[in-house]
Amino acid sequence: MPKLDLVIEELVTANRILAREEVVDSFGHVSVRHPDRPDRYLLSRARAPDCIEAEDIMEFTLEGDPIDARDRKPYLERYIHGALYEARPDVQAVVHNHSPSVIPFGVTGSKLKPLLHMCASIGHDVPLWDSQDRFGDTTLLVENMEMGRDLAKRVGPGRTALMRGHGAVAVGQTLRQAVFIAIYLEVGAKLQMQASTLGSIKFLTDAEVEKIINRTGPYTIDRAWENWCRRAGRKMTASA
Amino acid sequence: MPKLDLVIEELVTANRILAREEVVDSFGHVSVRHPDRPDRYLLSRARAPDCIEAEDIMEFTLEGDPIDARDRKPYLERYIHGALYEARPDVQAVVHNHSPSVIPFGVTGSKLKPLLHMCASIGHDVPLWDSQDRFGDTTLLVENMEMGRDLAKRVGPGRTALMRGHGAVAVGQTLRQAVFIAIYLEVGAKLQMQASTLGSIKFLTDAEVEKIINRTGPYTIDRAWENWCRRAGRKMTASA
Amino acid sequence: MPKLDLVIEELVTANRILAREEVVDSFGHVSVRHPDRPDRYLLSRARAPDCIEAEDIMEFTLEGDPIDARDRKPYLERYIHGALYEARPDVQAVVHNHSPSVIPFGVTGSKLKPLLHMCASIGHDVPLWDSQDRFGDTTLLVENMEMGRDLAKRVGPGRTALMRGHGAVAVGQTLRQAVFIAIYLEVGAKLQMQASTLGSIKFLTDAEVEKIINRTGPYTIDRAWENWCRRAGRKMTASA
Amino acid sequence: MPKLDLVIEELVTANRILAREEVVDSFGHVSVRHPDRPDRYLLSRARAPDCIEAEDIMEFTLEGDPIDARDRKPYLERYIHGALYEARPDVQAVVHNHSPSVIPFGVTGSKLKPLLHMCASIGHDVPLWDSQDRFGDTTLLVENMEMGRDLAKRVGPGRTALMRGHGAVAVGQTLRQAVFIAIYLEVGAKLQMQASTLGSIKFLTDAEVEKIINRTGPYTIDRAWENWCRRAGRKMTASA
Repeated sequence: MPKLDLVIEELVTANRILAREEVVDSFGHVSVRHPDRPDRYLLSRARAPDCIEAEDIMEFTLEGDPIDARDRKPYLERYIHGALYEARPDVQAVVHNHSPSVIPFGVTGSKLKPLLHMCASIGHDVPLWDSQDRFGDTTLLVENMEMGRDLAKRVGPGRTALMRGHGAVAVGQTLRQAVFIAIYLEVGAKLQMQASTLGSIKFLTDAEVEKIINRTGPYTIDRAWENWCRRAGRKMTASA
Repeated sequence: MPKLDLVIEELVTANRILAREEVVDSFGHVSVRHPDRPDRYLLSRARAPDCIEAEDIMEFTLEGDPIDARDRKPYLERYIHGALYEARPDVQAVVHNHSPSVIPFGVTGSKLKPLLHMCASIGHDVPLWDSQDRFGDTTLLVENMEMGRDLAKRVGPGRTALMRGHGAVAVGQTLRQAVFIAIYLEVGAKLQMQASTLGSIKFLTDAEVEKIINRTGPYTIDRAWENWCRRAGRKMTASA
Repeated sequence: MPKLDLVIEELVTANRILAREEVVDSFGHVSVRHPDRPDRYLLSRARAPDCIEAEDIMEFTLEGDPIDARDRKPYLERYIHGALYEARPDVQAVVHNHSPSVIPFGVTGSKLKPLLHMCASIGHDVPLWDSQDRFGDTTLLVENMEMGRDLAKRVGPGRTALMRGHGAVAVGQTLRQAVFIAIYLEVGAKLQMQASTLGSIKFLTDAEVEKIINRTGPYTIDRAWENWCRRAGRKMTASA
Repeated sequence: MPKLDLVIEELVTANRILAREEVVDSFGHVSVRHPDRPDRYLLSRARAPDCIEAEDIMEFTLEGDPIDARDRKPYLERYIHGALYEARPDVQAVVHNHSPSVIPFGVTGSKLKPLLHMCASIGHDVPLWDSQDRFGDTTLLVENMEMGRDLAKRVGPGRTALMRGHGAVAVGQTLRQAVFIAIYLEVGAKLQMQASTLGSIKFLTDAEVEKIINRTGPYTIDRAWENWCRRAGRKMTASA
């Protein structure tokens, strides 16, 4: 199978996994940078992640213009993806989601930090982007590159950000890593909400986070990926 | 397929979706205004939503009299539907449900408001109807048009209302929209309960709610509908 | 099918429903009074409810002696059932379970009361039985008629009781009603825990509870039963 | 089937059960002492528990050296298992997991104790091991025998321990017992978090715990095992 087709198959799998693991529902999306053209990315047409097939995957410039749209309607919020690829040459994949446990942190400003070794991947802490700050009353959707770039600035050199009243983003140096981070962002948020009802939390130290991040490679991520593929009814392929 | 049959099929689908998404369990119901006779509505016989088939769908006058009951027993609470169609010519569909996260708001009087962009559809805030206020000790069921009209008054020009110790109603200008609102009413209530354990909540502003409502059309709702159909094992048809 | 066989089939269905609705897990049990001999009851051999087949159903005297045990090992706690049938000639079925939301009430002494119309069936409030009070340190299991009778006294003329550190019992005038009560006991407990995080709860008034109880007959219970049968993969039969 | 093969089949079943009951997800592992060589143990290669087959099961010395690795990569944290078998000749099986409800106790230092009769198996209370105490900033993983032995010391003569920011361990005198304890550790932790929102908890007394532990044998554990096998799609065999 040509490399691009493999990447597209893996992107379909990523969509199905995020749906199965309840990180996306009818909304939310995941993209991957084009394997041959770093100035482009691949993202589904506007469709619920669990329904997506290979022929739904479209190609976009970083500005969000479709290359060959045919009759496929893109996601309104594709600018999230382009702006992050533009700002971060190291980033190869982006997830945007509204998973249930991250929302409460975004609307209360309660600080989300890793408390479990598996959650170190979300980064030392998770910054919060509020569209109100610069754009005032909007639909909260990231509808243009200006908003996308403002969000990307908030992510900075990190791996995640919360979006007030809206959701979160996670970026990765591989597609599997971005999915892994998005899933453990949800896991960590849920755990932190529960732990906070019991008492004061001892979070991971900065040095612990650093050591775990340096250690979390394919040995770890592919173990989860195999399991998630099985749960989502997808075949695991060699990493594309 | 004749138009009425399409509407009935869509109503069966709506029942199955609400069951699959856990907005109704063995109880709760959804109706649609008759496509040709605005003085009538379609609603299943008294049956759990996930068991309903096309032949269960009955036709009623707005007063709740069945047109051709045969041996089919209607829901006791059909007056909820008739009273809302009577009061609101713009309303084409009504959901009544007891989903788990809305109940706690109804019995504590805690104000339910949208905190997530997807929940703007529930309206600026959700009024509470308490059958005690005017009817005293009852079974809490809406058993006649008088109670139905009192509830409809509480809904007013809005999209939702809570019913103390009982559940909620959601209305829509299409069947899909009513289902969408009922589902995101449950989602929003769950998120608000969780967020309230973390701290003070920044809800959507009134202007944000307004902008999102104006933007939420078939592009958004049909994306969810396709996903919900798939989850409920129903074929998606062109909107009836 | 002979009447006894119908009752046994219905009892198997009750077991499967309670398992599917997560009111019992690997433990917990449900019995029915013998249809022809009010001094006997039917209860499975010691087996997880979701595994039970018709040939597992045994017959017991109210004292808990098996009539025809063959190689079937009875539940240790069968005395719960016999003691309730002995004390309450009106009772035709008994459920004993450890469902997750009732446990917290039993161990904190927090008062469990109906807040939702569907939960009126649990009774005006739910008494708490603590085996410590009369029997001191035990395994908490109801291992003999003396303990069973003490528990039955705590149930009194009611429909439910909590057992500290252990679970709950629910009784019904039909098998379907007992299952219905056990399920809505769990539903109500979960709702009350969640509502209590939001503020002070307005419970159903005593008169509301009374009116709803008087109204909750087969029209209501069979609607749920049909749905639960479908979910549990069992055929619904005419009420045995 | 030769005895070793039976033990391996039972170990595969244990993995699948722990996955199905959500005590492990993509990570976590369970081992059993070699039936003929008490100085060795059996543990899968590094793979998600729900994906494990008989051919994934490897044999290790207590020091963690694989006997016949072939191309199979072991779990990094296998030292947890060896250290516990070394310290505790009575222990025949070990579970290490990160189930969601135990984490909050580990990071807050809130004391986890049995409040339900089924949870007495976790022991009188659950000690907490914090890798920081002796090893400072690490990846939190138990990467060598020194860390494993330190953890085993914290378990002492008990049955369970929490690991701060990481998870828990459970040990048993049979494989089924270790799985039973790990599952009820999660159940108990979840119940305790919920009960703590309602008020002050009456835990089991020490004498109650003791009596229940003395009573919990195959009659109880095998009833759950049959149910868990059925849920995990595994055949129940005579205890290996």
